Amino acid sequence: MPDFVDRPDAALPEDLPTSTLPSLFDKCIRFFEPDGDYATVKGADLYPYFRPLERNEGTRAIINGREVIMAGSNNYLGLTSDPRVKQAAIEAIENYGTGCTGSRFLNGTLDLHLQLEERLAAFMNKESCVLFSTGYMTNQGVIQAVTTKGDFVFSDKDNHACIVAGTQVSLAETVRYRHNDLDHLRLLLERVHREHPQAGKLIVTDGVFSMSGVIARVPELVALAEEFGAALMLDDAHAIGAIGPGGRGSAAHFGLADRAHLITGTFSKSFASLGGFCVGDHDVIEYIRHKASAHIFSASMPPANVATVLKCLDILETETWRIERLWQISNYMREGFRSLGFDVWNSEAPIIPVVIGDMMTCFQFWKDLLDAGVFVNAVVPPAVPPGQALMRTSYMATHSDEELDFILEAFERIGRRHGIIGRNGRAH
Amino acid sequence: MPDFVDRPDAALPEDLPTSTLPSLFDKCIRFFEPDGDYATVKGADLYPYFRPLERNEGTRAIINGREVIMAGSNNYLGLTSDPRVKQAAIEAIENYGTGCTGSRFLNGTLDLHLQLEERLAAFMNKESCVLFSTGYMTNQGVIQAVTTKGDFVFSDKDNHACIVAGTQVSLAETVRYRHNDLDHLRLLLERVHREHPQAGKLIVTDGVFSMSGVIARVPELVALAEEFGAALMLDDAHAIGAIGPGGRGSAAHFGLADRAHLITGTFSKSFASLGGFCVGDHDVIEYIRHKASAHIFSASMPPANVATVLKCLDILETETWRIERLWQISNYMREGFRSLGFDVWNSEAPIIPVVIGDMMTCFQFWKDLLDAGVFVNAVVPPAVPPGQALMRTSYMATHSDEELDFILEAFERIGRRHGIIGRNGRAH
Repeated sequence: MPDFVDRPDAALPEDLPTSTLPSLFDKCIRFFEPDGDYATVKGADLYPYFRPLERNEGTRAIINGREVIMAGSNNYLGLTSDPRVKQAAIEAIENYGTGCTGSRFLNGTLDLHLQLEERLAAFMNKESCVLFSTGYMTNQGVIQAVTTKGDFVFSDKDNHACIVAGTQVSLAETVRYRHNDLDHLRLLLERVHREHPQAGKLIVTDGVFSMSGVIARVPELVALAEEFGAALMLDDAHAIGAIGPGGRGSAAHFGLADRAHLITGTFSKSFASLGGFCVGDHDVIEYIRHKASAHIFSASMPPANVATVLKCLDILETETWRIERLWQISNYMREGFRSLGFDVWNSEAPIIPVVIGDMMTCFQFWKDLLDAGVFVNAVVPPAVPPGQALMRTSYMATHSDEELDFILEAFERIGRRHGIIGRNGRAH
Repeated sequence: MPDFVDRPDAALPEDLPTSTLPSLFDKCIRFFEPDGDYATVKGADLYPYFRPLERNEGTRAIINGREVIMAGSNNYLGLTSDPRVKQAAIEAIENYGTGCTGSRFLNGTLDLHLQLEERLAAFMNKESCVLFSTGYMTNQGVIQAVTTKGDFVFSDKDNHACIVAGTQVSLAETVRYRHNDLDHLRLLLERVHREHPQAGKLIVTDGVFSMSGVIARVPELVALAEEFGAALMLDDAHAIGAIGPGGRGSAAHFGLADRAHLITGTFSKSFASLGGFCVGDHDVIEYIRHKASAHIFSASMPPANVATVLKCLDILETETWRIERLWQISNYMREGFRSLGFDVWNSEAPIIPVVIGDMMTCFQFWKDLLDAGVFVNAVVPPAVPPGQALMRTSYMATHSDEELDFILEAFERIGRRHGIIGRNGRAH
């Protein structure tokens, strides 16, 4: 190595003591203590998280060398391994390289980014669109940008973690309303409106809730927003490319796309990539572009990630059977689980929760399903209420009838073994 | 479309008024008013931001159909269009598809992610590594995860926006110290230590400051951290792959890599991709993996993004000339600007700020440079102090001597025209 690297200007003080772990990290040590939940679950080999997949191609994945049916992915349109999508991504790498090494703001804007923004604005029937490099940063950045000191954000208590992050980085005051409880929201709006009649107000909700598959009550939300002069923002991460006419999301599902001011989406679900976007009125979107920290101070989407979304959008617009098939599958599976006696909450989307109850049973159920050749997601408190640990199942347009029946049969067999459903196919 | 999409259950209330723009968006409208800064700069065609590049290949880019020399990228090793890197990314798409459609936590962990974590931990001589899908989310997520109510974060006032976001989502109390002023930091540490002797403490700083190229004073930071039992976190976004032995960053630059508890890095600079990582002790990293919202609730890095980093790491480890050349270039350019009479602050890294002064002159200078065939970044207040608007220039290991001299000559010509430097090559 050259001198200037090995011999820095500043010298190391000679009397430094040996390093010991700072007390800040006591919490980390405690987390892994031998009698804690983590050690117990891990010790019993029931730990369902961070499991590496050797392959993850559409409806099949390889885990621990074994092929399993994937019913725990957000790959709703089944496009992550579509040859046309892969080819588009490969061509983008050949033409533009692997990364942009800069933010959209400075040196990371390619013509590809502008193309995608135009296409998405047109697809969503909105004036403008702004991209973010992850879906998480999209909601965080949009909320931070459009709200400031003196504004109020009204946020559903079950909103996604990135909306919560948005309210935390925002200078506005946040008011949380009970999940999908619009009477509660009205009460809070009335109170804030009485005390701060001039304050800017933003109502923000998941369009489709990610754990339950429940659709937000957009008609009532639109009515409340307009009554109180609030802006309405829908996080359609699990809705665009999944529900509504042509896959246009939760507001379109109710014929109300023009009444939602801001609609956000993600590219790591139906669009087989990584990133996110927000559509809305031109001035509002341009303002977000200039004010969202997570947009300005983060590197732009790499060329392959952008090209993937452009190709998925082509396919979504031309192969309309995908959204229709996705809905047929969702209805079939929901009815299937219900007729076996499982509780699937009020799911309405391609996400179907199957309630197991107790956390340890949930982990065991997850492991038994995996052994039976089905991969789903185990969701335990605090992500769900106590005693409502569940298997989160989700579906793709490309699941075959045989795969769906295989999944139902596995759930039936294991559900009976654990006493979750009775022998006669009704709840135990 | 099928019935279930066109005819949702919930009916639209009939007495909704016509939509009007909520007052929340007044700020957006004001931003674009005709007599505002934005309209003035944009009207004069001097607006230097969000300019689309048609090509961005190493040291050359195409903008408005013209080839320019790129001196405004963070592509320090010049690898975004390296054929070996592109090939590795392409193979990952062929083998794994375009996206993981899930978080690392649930269904988005590939063996590729684990490989990269192992490689980076080994490269940085730390026990463990955790990946995030952007560099921005890395710092935000790490700070949020390791701190909680009752803890204190000590943050340099010039730290990157994503560190600020981390302190905003953290439940800890944040104390900001004057930029690189370790006497001020000591004062604040003493005060907090006196009032809260048991509190967990985190000192966090950019390893290399992104606008100035100044290196953090790691030896004194290590000494202070150890004296007060604080954890030290270095954001080496502009340091790893750029400074220190083998490109191992700011702590390694001072021979102190084992004394920094947490070191974060990004993949959207030297590593030609998108994403970020944190290395540290095993238990601490595993804790972050389970507690960082931006890790658990965000989709994992797509296969191509991971494979790009793995290949860049191979190249960084074998082609040691790249880091050496990068330093030669930085020294050459710094001396070049100084001998022309430009103020380059105390830059020590491949980032060299060239102070212009007034904001409008800065925008005009930027435009003149672009017309002369050189792309750099215009940085104006509040990103820099008032009256210190500057051209942020940055370099790649692959810049040729001819390109470097071309850049210096353009700066000299335009600098004289604007009276930034005098005719005799000294400051005006």
